[in-house]
Parts: sequence; structure tokens; C-alpha cells
Amino acid sequence: MVKLRLLRVRNALVRECMAEFLGTFILLLFGCSAAAQMKTSRETKGQFLSVNMAFSVGVMSAMYLTKGITGAHLNPAVTLSFCVLGKAQWGRLVPYCLSQLLGAYMASGLVYLVYYDAIMDFSGGVLTVYGPNETASIFATYPSEYMTLGRSFLDQVVGTGMLMLCILCLNEKRNTPAPSELIPPIVAVIVLGISMSMSANCGGAINPARDLGPRLFTLTAGWGIEVFTCYNYWFWVPLVAPPIGGVLGSLMYLFFIEWHLPDPDPPMDQSSLATISDIIKQPTTTQENGQEFKAAYF
Amino acid sequence: MVKLRLLRVRNALVRECMAEFLGTFILLLFGCSAAAQMKTSRETKGQFLSVNMAFSVGVMSAMYLTKGITGAHLNPAVTLSFCVLGKAQWGRLVPYCLSQLLGAYMASGLVYLVYYDAIMDFSGGVLTVYGPNETASIFATYPSEYMTLGRSFLDQVVGTGMLMLCILCLNEKRNTPAPSELIPPIVAVIVLGISMSMSANCGGAINPARDLGPRLFTLTAGWGIEVFTCYNYWFWVPLVAPPIGGVLGSLMYLFFIEWHLPDPDPPMDQSSLATISDIIKQPTTTQENGQEFKAAYF
Amino acid sequence: MVKLRLLRVRNALVRECMAEFLGTFILLLFGCSAAAQMKTSRETKGQFLSVNMAFSVGVMSAMYLTKGITGAHLNPAVTLSFCVLGKAQWGRLVPYCLSQLLGAYMASGLVYLVYYDAIMDFSGGVLTVYGPNETASIFATYPSEYMTLGRSFLDQVVGTGMLMLCILCLNEKRNTPAPSELIPPIVAVIVLGISMSMSANCGGAINPARDLGPRLFTLTAGWGIEVFTCYNYWFWVPLVAPPIGGVLGSLMYLFFIEWHLPDPDPPMDQSSLATISDIIKQPTTTQENGQEFKAAYF
Amino acid sequence: MVKLRLLRVRNALVRECMAEFLGTFILLLFGCSAAAQMKTSRETKGQFLSVNMAFSVGVMSAMYLTKGITGAHLNPAVTLSFCVLGKAQWGRLVPYCLSQLLGAYMASGLVYLVYYDAIMDFSGGVLTVYGPNETASIFATYPSEYMTLGRSFLDQVVGTGMLMLCILCLNEKRNTPAPSELIPPIVAVIVLGISMSMSANCGGAINPARDLGPRLFTLTAGWGIEVFTCYNYWFWVPLVAPPIGGVLGSLMYLFFIEWHLPDPDPPMDQSSLATISDIIKQPTTTQENGQEFKAAYF
Repeated sequence: MVKLRLLRVRNALVRECMAEFLGTFILLLFGCSAAAQMKTSRETKGQFLSVNMAFSVGVMSAMYLTKGITGAHLNPAVTLSFCVLGKAQWGRLVPYCLSQLLGAYMASGLVYLVYYDAIMDFSGGVLTVYGPNETASIFATYPSEYMTLGRSFLDQVVGTGMLMLCILCLNEKRNTPAPSELIPPIVAVIVLGISMSMSANCGGAINPARDLGPRLFTLTAGWGIEVFTCYNYWFWVPLVAPPIGGVLGSLMYLFFIEWHLPDPDPPMDQSSLATISDIIKQPTTTQENGQEFKAAYF
Repeated sequence: MVKLRLLRVRNALVRECMAEFLGTFILLLFGCSAAAQMKTSRETKGQFLSVNMAFSVGVMSAMYLTKGITGAHLNPAVTLSFCVLGKAQWGRLVPYCLSQLLGAYMASGLVYLVYYDAIMDFSGGVLTVYGPNETASIFATYPSEYMTLGRSFLDQVVGTGMLMLCILCLNEKRNTPAPSELIPPIVAVIVLGISMSMSANCGGAINPARDLGPRLFTLTAGWGIEVFTCYNYWFWVPLVAPPIGGVLGSLMYLFFIEWHLPDPDPPMDQSSLATISDIIKQPTTTQENGQEFKAAYF
Repeated sequence: MVKLRLLRVRNALVRECMAEFLGTFILLLFGCSAAAQMKTSRETKGQFLSVNMAFSVGVMSAMYLTKGITGAHLNPAVTLSFCVLGKAQWGRLVPYCLSQLLGAYMASGLVYLVYYDAIMDFSGGVLTVYGPNETASIFATYPSEYMTLGRSFLDQVVGTGMLMLCILCLNEKRNTPAPSELIPPIVAVIVLGISMSMSANCGGAINPARDLGPRLFTLTAGWGIEVFTCYNYWFWVPLVAPPIGGVLGSLMYLFFIEWHLPDPDPPMDQSSLATISDIIKQPTTTQENGQEFKAAYF
Repeated sequence: MVKLRLLRVRNALVRECMAEFLGTFILLLFGCSAAAQMKTSRETKGQFLSVNMAFSVGVMSAMYLTKGITGAHLNPAVTLSFCVLGKAQWGRLVPYCLSQLLGAYMASGLVYLVYYDAIMDFSGGVLTVYGPNETASIFATYPSEYMTLGRSFLDQVVGTGMLMLCILCLNEKRNTPAPSELIPPIVAVIVLGISMSMSANCGGAINPARDLGPRLFTLTAGWGIEVFTCYNYWFWVPLVAPPIGGVLGSLMYLFFIEWHLPDPDPPMDQSSLATISDIIKQPTTTQENGQEFKAAYF
């Protein structure tokens, strides 16, 4: 078999950034190509629901690829929230975000390559942001016509807040933890739910990298500066609102749930049978210890 | 990280009410905003199915947030049924129900804030209960035109009965238990099934808090008293019928299944190895005993 | 709490029949009411897919209710196949089938009660088997106009064969077992798949009780003898074909997979540590043995 | 019960080929009959999404049937990738691929038999590749009109690459493994995601056997040589591109993730309690080592 472990990267940060890059790449590859499939087939081979579902599958796949390496942030708003919560180091914030952005940009490029013929056929070769043949919304998100600025900001805050509120409880042993090996599909279902309930107003980005990466790509690929200037320079909303929403959702979780959970577990009894039980039950013991430590941490 | 455990609430009932509040809040936030997404996009960004699915995701998320704290009732009909079954204390009934109601009310308010522009655009600024541009059904449930009162009462009784009948077996070790860490998604799927089969007649509330909270909100937010008076004061049906249905479904479960299960496990044998087995295998041993008994029983 | 265990049924067969009754009742209650929801709302509150999904949720719920008691047959074709395979006693065949039939009949009656207003509104009060306002297909299955008799027979044989072929492997420890606590949702997904692929021709009953129970109900409730005589007495096809298909699918499973699996596990080794290992690890040890054997086998 | 283990096949390769045959047969039986259901009902009993979902259920079912025997390749591109990665023996490549092809061919034949009446009714008895009444796309895949050759080649490379990239991580204990008993549904969800995002261009075969088997069947069943000659002999694309894509996706996984994971587990410690721990904890201990190393590594 291929034995190129000489290529192994020995710097942890680089490895983690590679994982965040790849995870966000896969997330966007699923999602944006599903959007291209819906759009270019004029909804005959996909609907709004199938695009939501494809983003959800992308979340699951990206999490299985990266969760053991970085925790599978895949979203600057999540990385920031984890930094605020003390679950990630502040030094990871900028490198992770840049990796996520790059992954989203590259995925958009690949979707464009794969769907180039379809996009040209659909749009008649004119890449626009407005009108019935617009194709910019395959990549980045744009607000509905009726949206005011403040409302769209609130929309992104609430959507991202729901995300953090719903995922922070999933591995809390003192509450109702999800099976740790099934957290990726469960988070994917939560993201699906947010897509089905919070994307009518302005596309439900809830992720600055998911939005800015494709927007930058469309800028470079021929859609023009309009992708940034349209709707009165609306593009900054999905960059600024999600991190705020993520932190607010996290605080809401702390306030309503986490602070009131029982105290950490007491130390286990050290009976004369400790040796056997150590050998036999190490994982459980480790896990229990883990709980103690985690519990002590917050 | 944030070290505000000084804010910790030391009263168990208050903590539990906070959890029920938050859980019902999240449930309604997913569900009603999905209904707003469908309605205001004129079904281009959501369908009846996606609303059902979003309520289902809301159930799952709310259960993971609260199941370890209160058992995740999220529904006065469930709380009452659990009280009748002896699984919850009667003293919890009123506080839980009020918390659920408040959570539903607050969630409706947030959905209104987020979808305000969309609702105004859709309805032309006129908030009504009837007609093609009605928006009241984003929040509370209303019966179909053809429904008689008795039939809609039966509809809510049956829907809630299905809910209790299907969820009571899920953690019964003497039958086919679901994995305890996956009960939230399984209950969510059951709720999805009920939404797909029992909501044509009158919206499938099967939950007094889910219906009254949003209805009160629409009363205060400008839809007017019609939300209560319409369809000949129909609003009391989803308040009264679900608790009755929940208790009937629970009794049906007891009658057909629970009463005939093997006796509870006897105390574990106290052999000379009891100490080891206590430390090491308590849950598994219990389970084995259960299985042995089941095998011996049939 | 309610302490009526005096009502406990002490005869195992009666208890099992009650479980099969309840399971089939729940299965049909989900499925037929979803069909009623789709039909009477003229597909605005349900589609073909949501009916398929509701039957699937019904399968899951019914299995959690009954699997620990009877194995959750819910289908005479499954009961017969299990008898042929030696997984169920022949003496159970007739009682189980009658219980399933009765459950399906009663569920149809309840669906009729709940959707009576809707059915009357949809059909104009005329209960028919043919035409645009027919409502018989809410309950039993009917073939498409173009079907020949032999083809519809084959359709039911193949559909039921797929069912048995796909479920028999799920708890085979020597192959790739599904988690035993998650077999209900996995079987539900398989049934969903069959509904999406094998129900265009003649409704995908693949279950004599699911078809005959509702058909008998419609006979007694006013649809008339036409429910049996229509399409040249076609009703016997979903009664006769599924059991044949179930047995053929089971044999196919045996021929392609089961007979070639490694031999059953030998008795566990009786080392001096047997007592401890018995107490501690019985299930895991068995599994390990199975794995070792598989490894040695290939 | 049936005791025909005399029919047991003692040659491992034959047994494995029987499993790959049956698995691919079931995969195509679900998928192509769902395509027939959608097509012949003119999308009243199925949509693009339900076909995608049926293929996904087929993947799950086929994996549960065969994963313990062959690893459930079901796809020549997967077999080739596993050979390149050293996870399968090169000697298995040709026999597996032929078995998969035969399974796909036989499944197409059965779908044709079951849906013969429906296909004749839909097409008016004329089996064609082009036009509104074409039925060839029930079986094999065909490109959209606007596709260029290179683009459709890229489409198949990317789709198959996504598949390999996303599934290779699922049982990696040093990262975030999926529960091994739930890998079939998780892979099924990944395949569903690819179907929803990569099938607008040319049908999303990503599997040479899934495409060539049905195409050969349609050739022999009356659709004529056009199934191969149409679109300028396009048929070779889904044969050649997927294996290339599978290998590229695998390499991408190695490059971004696998090579940077911690070293393989060292041999277990041989303490005086080794015998007990061997009997009791072998799998868990391995896992512990992996976790320790990961912890030490980051």
C-alpha cells in the first residue's frame, strides 16, 4: 500500500488546519453542488428541501472526517464560541477561520467546474446576481427583497444561536448525552432543522466561512463586484451576525442548563479490588474521570 | 471561561422549570419558524412536510437539552400522563405546564420578530385568521372548514394517545428498549409520524402549550380576539382533548403491554463475587437478569 | 399509580396475540390515517412520500411496542416465513394472523372515525372504489389500471421477498449485525425503501393483514362489495402472494448468505477464570468468539 | 427447519462473489424499481428525491447483507480503491467486479419483469432512449443534453471521490469512528447526499457495475444498440471515471487526514494479568491505547 508517511505533517496546528480546510471543503461541496443541481435543473432534480438535506449530509461527513482532530468546527462562529467557552484555544481562532474560508473557496471553485456547462446552459452565459436566471445564489446567500437590514441581522443571530444552543448539550454526561459516535448525524439533523426554519429570510448561512468563501469565488469567477455591493453591501451581515449569535446561544445554554447541573462526580472508592477493576473497566473509569475533569472545568 | 456559577439556581423546581421553558421554547422556535418559512415563501422554501420535520427536529433538540433534568415533557399532556402513571410528582404538574406555556409564548414572539418583514410582505400588513393571506396558522392551530366539533376533539384525543402509547415502551428494559441515548431522535420520528398522519383535520397540536402559547401571542401581537373566537371558540379543543388522549393512550399501553411484562427484577444474588460484580457489571447484570426472566416467562 | 396488575393475563399466547393486535393496530393507524390525510387534503397536507414515511414510522413504533414479546411480526407473511425458518412455532401461525387481521380492522375503523368529516367532504358523501373521488384506497390497496393479474402477483412476491431478504440478516452475529436496540428503525427504513420502489403497480401491501383488514372494514362501513369484486376479484393477490414471496426471500437469504456463514460458536472454554468471566463478560466473549471464527474462516 | 447446509459453499472466493452478487442485486433492485415507479407513474408516486432515497436504502440493505463477508464493496470503483489502499487483495478485483456486474444485470431484469406492464403502458410499447416517453433512464444513466464529454468525466470523478473520501474515515479508531454496527446507514446517507448534489449532470452513477449492468440489460431487452451509441458513445464515462475518482478521493483522504493520525497501536502490555485482560477486554484495550496516543499526540 501507499507508504508515503514521509509526507506526514508533524506540526499539530498545520494538521488541524488541514482538517478544518478539508471539512469545510466537503461541507460546501455537498451543499453548493446540491444548490447547483436544484437551480440548473429548474427544480426538476432537486428542491429547496434536497439542498437543505445535502448541506446536512455535508455536515455529517465533514464531522466524521475531522471531529477527532479539531472537534469539527467548520464554522468561524463555532470556533469563536468554543474559544469563549474555553473549549478551544484562542490561538486557534484565526488559523482555523482562514482554513475554513479557504476550504469554502476551493469547494466553490470545484462546484463551478463540475456545473460549468449546466450554469452556462441555465444562465445563457450571463453570470448575474439578480433576475430569474441569476446563479449567484448557488454559491453565497442573498436576502429576500422584503428584508430590512436589522431584521436580516437578527435572523442570522437567531439561527446561529439555535445551532450553539442545541449542540452544546450533546456530550454533557450529566444531562442526556448523545452517543459520542453519533454526534455527527445528530448535529447534521439540527442543521437541517435550522435550514428548514431559518433560511427563508436570507438563506440561512449561519457561518461566515460558508458565505464569504463562495462570495469571494463568485467575485473572481465572473459574477463581478455586484456580489458584494448588491442589496446595499449586505454581504457583511452573514460575517458579523453569526459569531454574535453563536456566543449568545452559548450563554443562553449556560444560563438555562449548564450552570445548574449537579456538581462533578466524587472520586471513585479505592477498594482492595482496584487493580482488577482498573484493568477491566479502564474505559469506564477513564470516562468517569473525564467527566470529573470536565465537570471541574466549568 | 465564564465562571458565573454564582448564578446557579439551587432550587430544583426552578431549575426544572427553566429547562421545561427552554425546551418548549426551542421546540416552538423550530416549528413555528418553519411554518413561517413555508407560509411567507408561498411554499417555495418549505412545504407541509418540512414543517412537520422541523417540529420533529425541535422535539429532538429540546429532549437532548432537558431530558436529564426533567424527563423532557415539553407538553402538558405528557406531564399529566406521567403524573397519572406515577412517573412524575403531581406537584410538578402546574409549574411545568406554566413553564411550557411561557416557553411557547416567548418562542412565538421571537418567530414574529425574525419573520416580521416576511409576514408583513406576505399579508400586506393585515394580520388575519381567515382568507388566503391569513398568517395566524403560522402560530396556533385551526381546524379545517369541514370539521365538526366532536370530530376535532376525537382527532386530538387520538393523536395524543398515539404519542403516549408509542413513547412509553421506549425505555422498558423488559420489552425492546431503545438505546437510552437515542430516545430523543426516536421520539422525534414518532412525532413526525403523527404530524404526517393526524394533522389534516386540525393541525395536530397534541400539546396544549404548543397551541395556547402561540395563540396568546397572536392575541397580543395584533391578530385580535378572533384567534380565540373563530370557528365558534374552537380554541379549547387542543387544550382539553390532548390531556385526555394522553391518559387514554397511557392506559392502553398498560392494558395491552405493561401489565403483562415479567415481574421486576429480584435483588441480585449475593454470591461471594458480589462485590466484584457490583463494581464491574451492575447494569449488565441487571439486564441479563431481565433477559433470563423474560426467557423463563414465556 | 394504577395498580391493576390483577388484570394481568397469565396465558402467554393471549399476551402475545394482544401484542400482535396492538402492533398491527398502530402500524395501520399511522399508515391509513396518513393516506387519509393525503387523499382528503388533495395532496396539500401530504404526498405519496409522506404516506410511505408514516407507514415506516408505524413499523418502528409497532416494533418497539412488541418486539420483546412476540418478535414483532405484524404481518402474516413474516409469521409464516419465521415458522418455515424455525424461528417461530407453527402453533403461533393462526392466532398471530388473526390478531394482526383484527388489529388492522380496528385501526381502519378508528381512521374512519377520525377522518369521517374529511372523507365525507372529499367524496361528497359517496363512498366509491373508482373515480377521482374514490376513497377506498385510503384503506386497502388496489392495482393500477394497466396491471395484468400475473404481473401484480409477481409484484407482491418480489416486494415481500425483498422484505424478508433484507431483515433476516439484521441480527446475525456472524455477519454484520445491526444494533439490536435499533432494529426497529432499520426495518422501518427498509419498509420505506420498498414503499418507494414497489408500490406503483398495486400499492405495495406486502402484508395480507394490512390489506384484508382494511378491506373488510370498508365492506362493512359502506363502500360495498365492490371492494372485493373490483378489478376482477383482485383482492386475493395481496393475500396469497406475500406469504409466497416471504418464504422465497427467506430461502434466497439462506442460499446466498446464511448457509455459508461460519459454524455456530463452540461452547466457551472452561478455564479456571470461567466463573468471573461468566459473570463479567458473557455477551462480549461470545462476540469475540464469533469474530475469531470469522477471521479464521476467511 | 431447512437443513440444507450440504449446499454450503466451501470456497471462500465463491462465497464472497455470491455475497457481492446479492448485494449489488439488492442495491439495483431498490434503486431501479424506484426509478421505474417515478417514471411510469409520471412522478405521481415518486420523485427524483424518492429515487435517491431508494438507492440509499438499497446501499444500507446491501451492506448489512454483505459487510461481514466481503466488506460490502458493491461497486468496482470501491473494490479498486480498496485494492490500491491494501484493504482488499488484488486477486479479488476481477471476480468481485464481475459478480457486481452480474448482480446489477439480474436486478435490472427483475425490475423489467415487475414493471413490464407499467413500462409498456407508459411508453406505448416503444422502448426508446430519447424523447418524453423514453424509459432507458430507468435503468442506466444518461447525460444531460448540455454536457460536454470532459465535464461529464469530471462529474463522475468528483462524485466517486466524494464517496471514498467520506467513507474511509468511518472506521478509523484514531479519529471519530462511526459505530461499526451503524456504518451501513451512515454510508447510505452519504450516498444520498451525493445523489442530491452530483446527479443533475449525468445521473450520478459513480459505480461502473450500477451503470453497465442495466445498460447491457436494456441492450438485450429491446432498447437496441442506441443505449451504447447515444450521446456519441458516452457509455464509457461511468465505466472509466469512477475508478479514477475513487482512487483520487482515497489519496486525498490519505493526504489530508490519515497520514497525520497517530502511529498504530503498540503491542499490548504483557502484565501478569494478561490472561484475564485478554479474555475480557481485548477490543476495548486496543481502543484505549489509541485514545491515549491521540491524547498524547495533540
